[in-house]
Amino acid sequence: MTSTLLWRDSLPAADAFCARHVGPDDRDVAAMLGVIGAGSLDDLMEQTVPSAIRLRRDMGLGAGVSEPEVLRRLRAIAGRNRVMTSLIGQGYYGTVLPGVIQRNVLENPAWYTAYTPYQPEISQGRLEALLNFQTLVTDLTGLDVANASLLDEATAAAEAMALARRVARSKADGFFVDADCHPQTLAVLRTRAEPMGWRIIVGDPDSDLDADAVFGALFQYPGSSGRIRDPRAWIERLHAAQAVVAMAADPLALTLLEPPGVLGADIAIGSMQRYGMPMGAGGPHAAYMAVRDAFKRNMPGRLVGVSIDSRGEPAYRLALQTREQHIRREKATSNICTAQVLPAVISSMYAVYHGPDGLTAIARRIHRLTAILAAGLRALAVRVETDAVFDTLTVATGGDSTLLRDRAEAAGMNVRVVDAGRVGISLDETTTPDIVRAIWHCFCPDAQRVEEMERTLAAPADLLPPALRRTGTFLTHPVFHAHRSETDLLRYLRRLSDRDLALDRSMIPLGSCTMKLNATVEMMPVTWPEFCDIHPFAPAAQQAGYAELFADLERMLRAISGYDAVSLQPNSGAQGEYAGLLAIRGYHRARGDEGRDVCLIPASAHGTNPASAQMAGMRVVVVACDGQGNVDIADLKTKIAQHADRLAAIMITYPSTHGVFEESVVEICDLVHAAGGQVYLDGANMNAQVGLSRPGAFGADVSHFNLHKTFCIPHGGGGPGMGPIGVGAHLAPFLPGRPEEGGVNAVSAAPFGSAAVLPISWTYMVLMGDAGLRRATEVAILNSNYVATRLEGHYPVLYRGANGRVAHECIIDLRPIKDATGITVDDIAKRLIDHGFHAPTVSFPVAGTFMIEPTESEGRRELDRFCDAMIAIRDEIREVEGGVLTAEQSPLRHAPHTVRDLTDPAWERAYDRQRGCLPGDVAAASKYWSPVNRLDNAYGDRNLVCSCPDMASYAEGTAV
Amino acid sequence: MTSTLLWRDSLPAADAFCARHVGPDDRDVAAMLGVIGAGSLDDLMEQTVPSAIRLRRDMGLGAGVSEPEVLRRLRAIAGRNRVMTSLIGQGYYGTVLPGVIQRNVLENPAWYTAYTPYQPEISQGRLEALLNFQTLVTDLTGLDVANASLLDEATAAAEAMALARRVARSKADGFFVDADCHPQTLAVLRTRAEPMGWRIIVGDPDSDLDADAVFGALFQYPGSSGRIRDPRAWIERLHAAQAVVAMAADPLALTLLEPPGVLGADIAIGSMQRYGMPMGAGGPHAAYMAVRDAFKRNMPGRLVGVSIDSRGEPAYRLALQTREQHIRREKATSNICTAQVLPAVISSMYAVYHGPDGLTAIARRIHRLTAILAAGLRALAVRVETDAVFDTLTVATGGDSTLLRDRAEAAGMNVRVVDAGRVGISLDETTTPDIVRAIWHCFCPDAQRVEEMERTLAAPADLLPPALRRTGTFLTHPVFHAHRSETDLLRYLRRLSDRDLALDRSMIPLGSCTMKLNATVEMMPVTWPEFCDIHPFAPAAQQAGYAELFADLERMLRAISGYDAVSLQPNSGAQGEYAGLLAIRGYHRARGDEGRDVCLIPASAHGTNPASAQMAGMRVVVVACDGQGNVDIADLKTKIAQHADRLAAIMITYPSTHGVFEESVVEICDLVHAAGGQVYLDGANMNAQVGLSRPGAFGADVSHFNLHKTFCIPHGGGGPGMGPIGVGAHLAPFLPGRPEEGGVNAVSAAPFGSAAVLPISWTYMVLMGDAGLRRATEVAILNSNYVATRLEGHYPVLYRGANGRVAHECIIDLRPIKDATGITVDDIAKRLIDHGFHAPTVSFPVAGTFMIEPTESEGRRELDRFCDAMIAIRDEIREVEGGVLTAEQSPLRHAPHTVRDLTDPAWERAYDRQRGCLPGDVAAASKYWSPVNRLDNAYGDRNLVCSCPDMASYAEGTAV
Repeated sequence: MTSTLLWRDSLPAADAFCARHVGPDDRDVAAMLGVIGAGSLDDLMEQTVPSAIRLRRDMGLGAGVSEPEVLRRLRAIAGRNRVMTSLIGQGYYGTVLPGVIQRNVLENPAWYTAYTPYQPEISQGRLEALLNFQTLVTDLTGLDVANASLLDEATAAAEAMALARRVARSKADGFFVDADCHPQTLAVLRTRAEPMGWRIIVGDPDSDLDADAVFGALFQYPGSSGRIRDPRAWIERLHAAQAVVAMAADPLALTLLEPPGVLGADIAIGSMQRYGMPMGAGGPHAAYMAVRDAFKRNMPGRLVGVSIDSRGEPAYRLALQTREQHIRREKATSNICTAQVLPAVISSMYAVYHGPDGLTAIARRIHRLTAILAAGLRALAVRVETDAVFDTLTVATGGDSTLLRDRAEAAGMNVRVVDAGRVGISLDETTTPDIVRAIWHCFCPDAQRVEEMERTLAAPADLLPPALRRTGTFLTHPVFHAHRSETDLLRYLRRLSDRDLALDRSMIPLGSCTMKLNATVEMMPVTWPEFCDIHPFAPAAQQAGYAELFADLERMLRAISGYDAVSLQPNSGAQGEYAGLLAIRGYHRARGDEGRDVCLIPASAHGTNPASAQMAGMRVVVVACDGQGNVDIADLKTKIAQHADRLAAIMITYPSTHGVFEESVVEICDLVHAAGGQVYLDGANMNAQVGLSRPGAFGADVSHFNLHKTFCIPHGGGGPGMGPIGVGAHLAPFLPGRPEEGGVNAVSAAPFGSAAVLPISWTYMVLMGDAGLRRATEVAILNSNYVATRLEGHYPVLYRGANGRVAHECIIDLRPIKDATGITVDDIAKRLIDHGFHAPTVSFPVAGTFMIEPTESEGRRELDRFCDAMIAIRDEIREVEGGVLTAEQSPLRHAPHTVRDLTDPAWERAYDRQRGCLPGDVAAASKYWSPVNRLDNAYGDRNLVCSCPDMASYAEGTAV
Repeated sequence: MTSTLLWRDSLPAADAFCARHVGPDDRDVAAMLGVIGAGSLDDLMEQTVPSAIRLRRDMGLGAGVSEPEVLRRLRAIAGRNRVMTSLIGQGYYGTVLPGVIQRNVLENPAWYTAYTPYQPEISQGRLEALLNFQTLVTDLTGLDVANASLLDEATAAAEAMALARRVARSKADGFFVDADCHPQTLAVLRTRAEPMGWRIIVGDPDSDLDADAVFGALFQYPGSSGRIRDPRAWIERLHAAQAVVAMAADPLALTLLEPPGVLGADIAIGSMQRYGMPMGAGGPHAAYMAVRDAFKRNMPGRLVGVSIDSRGEPAYRLALQTREQHIRREKATSNICTAQVLPAVISSMYAVYHGPDGLTAIARRIHRLTAILAAGLRALAVRVETDAVFDTLTVATGGDSTLLRDRAEAAGMNVRVVDAGRVGISLDETTTPDIVRAIWHCFCPDAQRVEEMERTLAAPADLLPPALRRTGTFLTHPVFHAHRSETDLLRYLRRLSDRDLALDRSMIPLGSCTMKLNATVEMMPVTWPEFCDIHPFAPAAQQAGYAELFADLERMLRAISGYDAVSLQPNSGAQGEYAGLLAIRGYHRARGDEGRDVCLIPASAHGTNPASAQMAGMRVVVVACDGQGNVDIADLKTKIAQHADRLAAIMITYPSTHGVFEESVVEICDLVHAAGGQVYLDGANMNAQVGLSRPGAFGADVSHFNLHKTFCIPHGGGGPGMGPIGVGAHLAPFLPGRPEEGGVNAVSAAPFGSAAVLPISWTYMVLMGDAGLRRATEVAILNSNYVATRLEGHYPVLYRGANGRVAHECIIDLRPIKDATGITVDDIAKRLIDHGFHAPTVSFPVAGTFMIEPTESEGRRELDRFCDAMIAIRDEIREVEGGVLTAEQSPLRHAPHTVRDLTDPAWERAYDRQRGCLPGDVAAASKYWSPVNRLDNAYGDRNLVCSCPDMASYAEGTAV
């Protein structure tokens, strides 16, 4: 209808948002093209992206829209979700996220744009918060060591099962699952067990548990039905049979109930969702895992520990990293390579703010309401089937569950329909007496009778089983007692976030992760009640807005990738790999190709690839890379020939982890297909492909998309991520099913994983539109080539494509420096901190190198600032080369420099304070100070401390 | 209905929020009472508050509610506002606040909890933002000097008139006002002129302007009707008559129109609202004022200037402070003592983000839509009365304005009904072609005809008068070109806010302002669209939510204060004083007491008191204070006797500015009343009275309430504030009328001042409830007495009440130190920065002293940290006393210490670096660094630079 000519000058530019998202403006782009010697962005793309795979038309996504317009659309979509009072339970509960935490963590870029704390010196704030989380979990569970969170309760249960298999001395092949576990947990356990050949045995522990038949067991505490049972006798029998026992425990109930560790369990897992994280239609939430001390080195996931820095002061860092998949590769037993850091920080702060008294008060209040609800129902002659409960009742409906559900819905409430004769009702922190009354009215429409009942109802006794009441104290550490006022918590949050270097202060030039802008407008819907306050298992009609958004997101991902079908379920990139390989496995088996179990993986692959393959029941066969870092085609052919009839798949990353668009990618796909294999194309580097090439179109069968890399979900300091997968039509039948319905291949607890962060990626794509997304990719490649060009005279750039171009990231080789001077990659990484930068990726995929990915969001000024810092560092290295200073005397070795260094009266360095602390053109007024000196990692691994250190080191305000 | 017994243990605590708002918990309170030697809080109140005025029952506000409950209520209230497309114009326009600015300024405590930048060293971030604002204003207006913002366009106009009177050589008593000014501007001008005896002459400048009859004139540009006229001929005539010319100019239109300075105007004023600040039903917004260089020392308001620090480096600070009311007192000609810092920062960042090109593009787009709208209307045979326009059309309705308005409303739009035959239509940044079409449809319900018209409409010519098109460049400073990507702006915002010390890092122990917690939940509604996107002159039915909230807020203020009526209009405390005195003036005059014009003011009063009295046409007579800082009753009696029949009022502050509950307050009220005067009780110290005493009940006739002190509106770095007034029933008829309707005594442009921040105070009161509010007052008094007790052995505490207690603030005397050692209050204030603290109020109300008000929100730990710092400083002073160091050698004199000091190779101080920079127990890892050394104020006032310094000092990333 718009007459183009008439309105021409009166419309906002379609690239208005793109110009905000992409750092360099047109003038910068022109200048940078000049520096790298390319005539235009188009020329650069021709030189960089192999012609055979180049997409030469648009993706069909249309033009970008403005920020106000996207907010208008989002509000309309949000308005189609319906927020109800959720009493469904089943692992998801209403909770109150304190405003001070919402605004100053979840909505604060200082927290949400931070990266995983691999560089501990500049991550002390979130490391402290995660240590608080681990302390919270160990205290609640009564176990010795907790990790820094897992993806969700169901995957945590699967990890517990795998851990049990690793550590149990029992040789049995069964794993017993309490029939009163949440159905989604059971579904994910089945998915995980099947390729590994483990038998899942579901039953009532009292009657069905054959301890000799299993290597482990999982009990839900309280059960999904609400019922609390004493597991001690079962645990004794299992231990006698050398089996390992895991309990899935509700952390709020644990404030009132004897913890799993005291009951004898070896492992506890669960979800910290109800510690302040909105339900969000399924996530993101922090799941937890805690284990006995003996199992700590076998525990999957990240573990924060206390160590010391070079001054001997306590400092935090990730402990036992050698357990992780990127180190263990083919030996890995879990592909977990992330945590849910942001939700874990939020849940830990919820506990810090409430303290043990406050948490217990919340739990008690919920329990009192539950006891009153039960007593009232009974007084109304309704049969309550569960006696010993915390917050959940299973109630008989006399065959009218549907009627009951409809009545509840009419009153604005959702209950859980267990079966035709029973519903489940779970209360939570948001429950009020009015809600309890409304439930009574659902069961007894005679209002007068309900009122009369309430008037005469005596305060009932508690329903907690006396033998299981919690006895000991917990959360005695001062951090859980020092921040009771909002002012105090606000300052604590600020103090911690100030210690960390995130995207809100400077670029994070990681290769291996794409640290681009997480625009505010993309983050806004995340905390809208219409997206937050939806139970993942609420009726579809109440999730119409989400359904619309998901369908549209899937459509856009298909258009971008060239695949035919998409699943939004995988909760991380690694889970995406796993789900994709399961789809391949399912495809082969459906064709009777049960013997196909070999997965080819190039030597340069991400460590998650082999780990995921192993979990999908495949054998990993490594394919060599050539001197340019490309897949060695000759070796590939050899390996294919060796394993032809057993070939299941190849996993390749494109562009390669070496930052190159391999020309041979189409040939690789063809070779594998010819041998009957499937091609898994790791989508970690999609940021170099969007708008330029489509894996689904050039030969791949399945890919995952790291929405937290290419599609703007912030890293949150190390999670949440999302790893949806796209597949060709032939694999679509094998995509993950709905976990709560026991769907096959379910890999997450919730049907759409961390649904609440999906609006971020949707918003990004809609804002950018077709041209904007392509522009982003082009500038990402330009920026990377610009950095390579600026640095190549100072550091050798490894690996280039056919025309001498790198893709969206580049590798610089620091090994010659090490050989010549003894200056290490670590020295250089830490010296960058003095310049105010997070280091690039260190020693991946090649030891002794930096991998640098600037992303499209960094402008020329910041790129230059980074290159200038790198060049200044090179000059400092030359001093060592020239014998002016030894490596030990060099400021590089003493980096990062701290205020303690600067105020040290005994300054006996070979360089002066100013040069040490304000290298290059670092502005004194804007200096970022590392809060600690260089970490001693070995010390921390030798002396493992993974919960808050004792009070002495926590003197007021001075802790680390 | 709730059966107390049944539900007893299942309800959240009513004081849940109070416990978050109030710093000390019960244990702390008990310990602190022990330290000060009081048996209980009640005992302390008995000792502190005079029995005669003590309120001994509750206020009738009920119990506090929880945060989720208050949000539920707020959402319900917000839901009763109706957000429409506003085309009303008249000074308020739709605008797009970029998300990155909303989240990282308006919703970020680092910005909104900051105080006025009196301590420039720790305010460099917002001072830079304000300097950007001033540069923006001078560039847009073509004038030489701009201040850091005023309250709203109407008061800015009144200030311009008063400024004209001060500087004009004309002796005439008239002030000409363009009939095409906004009606609310005219109303406020009338209010301001009447007590001063200035004649307001309203007319068409072409026909009605008698230059010899006026000392000044105001023209609106473009006019309220939309019409743009060339004022040059009028200005020439006025200048010839020695009169001064002010123009009220739309800053967005100024990107396309020749600026007032170029046209010859002496003063420009206006509202920066449409630079990103939501309409918010009237505010808060930053008004601007710019003047010719010759008038800069007469300009009201705050002025940020560039000076140098003790290292000779450029640094920002408030310039020409000696102009201000707190210095000039009775000689003051304006009571302006604040700016709208937060809105000014936001508007400046809007300009920084868009730059001159972006701003011009927005303006051009609006103008193109306006031209198309006009052409389309004309093509539909509708008469458009305005030819030369920017964004606003006056359109004939053929006598059917009501019908047209109703049609527009039905289409979701508001137009301005000018009269029965005309409506006004203003377009803005949010206008789309669809809105233009919808307007056409309102004028021509024949849809087919409109469609046909659009199809055939040729793109019309611009409607800007060619002679007035802007010619020169503007915003050439690099800061308006360096932050185009969201990443860049985000980092700029973070960098600036990191330089400032606000409540999110440490206490701000000011007496004179109450820097308590601004809780997140109180801030949340401020950015909800239902409160933001309401035009102040939208129909009442669309503001039903606001009306409900205002009525409830008034009810609570009446209950708290004991007054009979409340006006929410005054936009600041000073405006409240002024409005209150106008009510007294009106009262006397209505009774025929026209001669009553004497206002008694104690010597200890805030400087705004005499300034406001002067503006209300009163003569200030000072009443002496006794040695205890109390009103000298004998002198009061004398002064009353001297001026009995001319006595209009007394202005007292209670508790006094000396921090004491004067026992004689009832007697003072009685004495004044007996002489026919009225009692104005300055509510600045209401934080010591809420729940304990009620001025309206013990004798006062009128008070203002600083909602930004007692009632939690954050200080925003120096605004916005709100100063509603309460009055006895006899004064109610003289409260401010609705400005847009020409109401008598209107003092603000909008009927409810800065309506959008009123939900903050409402939320606070509802959360706290009766008991919570009283508890806050009690703990504020406890905290103040605790500080007094802890410091009294180290510094003399001046002024105490009858029982030796101070009120909510206390004064410590630093004059003996100065006399003995030469160490000044400034030395001590700056040394506190090294400890990470904002200084207390310096030299008010007594020169050479600190006034300390800790507020109830600070916990014992923070109070102790502050007292420990003060005691450590006292020890450093003893070194000077003992001759160990001279004052010049002392770290006190060199404070604040900066990174530049620390890295200076030439450290030749008499103390070591560690002691200088990390005094006391300041933690190295959490150290706040002042970005500059001590400011040289005199240098800056001698070399006045009030816009961004030239490019040389703005080298990339290193500016100050």
